[in-house]
Amino acid sequence: MKKMLIVLALLGLPLQGWAADARGTPSAALFQVSTIDALLSGVYDGDVTIGELRKRGNFGLGTFNRLDGEMLAVDGRYYQIKANGVAYPVPPSMKTPFASVVRFTGTKTMALPQGISGAELEKWLDERFDNKNLFYAIRIDGKFSRMQTRAVAAQEKPYRPLVEVVKTQAVFNLDNTRGVIVGLWSPAFSKGISVPGYHWHFLTADKKAGGHILSFSVDEATAKIDAVSNFNVRLPRDEAFAKTDLSKDREHELNKVER
Amino acid sequence: MKKMLIVLALLGLPLQGWAADARGTPSAALFQVSTIDALLSGVYDGDVTIGELRKRGNFGLGTFNRLDGEMLAVDGRYYQIKANGVAYPVPPSMKTPFASVVRFTGTKTMALPQGISGAELEKWLDERFDNKNLFYAIRIDGKFSRMQTRAVAAQEKPYRPLVEVVKTQAVFNLDNTRGVIVGLWSPAFSKGISVPGYHWHFLTADKKAGGHILSFSVDEATAKIDAVSNFNVRLPRDEAFAKTDLSKDREHELNKVER
Repeated sequence: MKKMLIVLALLGLPLQGWAADARGTPSAALFQVSTIDALLSGVYDGDVTIGELRKRGNFGLGTFNRLDGEMLAVDGRYYQIKANGVAYPVPPSMKTPFASVVRFTGTKTMALPQGISGAELEKWLDERFDNKNLFYAIRIDGKFSRMQTRAVAAQEKPYRPLVEVVKTQAVFNLDNTRGVIVGLWSPAFSKGISVPGYHWHFLTADKKAGGHILSFSVDEATAKIDAVSNFNVRLPRDEAFAKTDLSKDREHELNKVER
Repeated sequence: MKKMLIVLALLGLPLQGWAADARGTPSAALFQVSTIDALLSGVYDGDVTIGELRKRGNFGLGTFNRLDGEMLAVDGRYYQIKANGVAYPVPPSMKTPFASVVRFTGTKTMALPQGISGAELEKWLDERFDNKNLFYAIRIDGKFSRMQTRAVAAQEKPYRPLVEVVKTQAVFNLDNTRGVIVGLWSPAFSKGISVPGYHWHFLTADKKAGGHILSFSVDEATAKIDAVSNFNVRLPRDEAFAKTDLSKDREHELNKVER
């Protein structure tokens, strides 16, 4: 049965009910720095270095101190896509106020339907998640007919809330591009801590551009997916985090910021 | 400064602003099995053994498979307070569907005001938490003029929601008792995953009785507290957990069940 599934996967056939089998490694853990609501509130400085983050995962997404661009990690390499649209390799000394990373193995492989939009892809994946109460790490390699990304720029203190900052975000239209999408799916109950639903970042194949995805369409692409059942959150110890009101429902702000 | 704080703590004087200093050990991590909303929904069987849990913490609380009583861990020893009111040592092979444990060190010590009720104590502690966005492990040793606890009984399938089960809980009035309270304080944003606010379990000094605390009054007691900034959740992989709707707000049910 297992062999057959692998053969089907290699053939690129969609696997109904794959999620139940997509157990990843037993120790697979999503390591998250801070909470999304702290980031929404303007806690833009953290004390976790990228060097430390790399020990926890080779795959993931986030941002950098002062909100200096979008973070994407793939194959153990960390990239910073700055507000000028350029992707840079990240030195291990750089710090992050918010990031989610995992040791990615890519337990299940599936070919994606050609020509579907990002919104359609999300529904298509939804139908294949047997367990919506776990986290999923999703890597998509391929060609994209449409790819709209954004990157935020480094901020100065006093920091404004993220919903204000994104009003000045740089938007990039990278159509007919090749590259890799790093995606995380978080369950509804992680609201306030994580980003419930999908969160996608992109890096071009030449590793020179990318960003936080606003919308995209698949031309031809393959997804690899791990189910992740350990969720490890490191909360900041600093005063900015301590003083933030994290009891408020920020779902409305999150939707404005992430989509 | 640090020495003076320790001296004050040894003298049992209340320490204003102690929470900012109560950093615990840098690696202090609360390890939680499953989510409180899954427990509320009737997911009463887990696959994490007490043996495994002991590796993650020497202090904490929870329940056992089939909801067979209240769990309390202190000094590395795990106890099961069953619906007959009796506390039993727990064999390492027993399993839990929900538990939260930590390696407790007791960074800060404070004498509690005499004669205050549990509700007053919660307010008193609230005022001393500089950072309400962290978790706190709270150990209280002493004499209690009033101590009302409960324990739930092992359930049969099909499991009913916890809000139904607690209607038949056994309640114990252990007045003028000596013992230890194991407490956890969880931040508001952990709602749905953890129990926001305080969660108290009790064990008598002779280790023969206890339970989930409904209400209590302090006669004379000392608290030891650790701030905990790592929150590690292990989600179940089984079908019962997968099939549970964890997108619903269960705050109302939680208040009925825990208080």
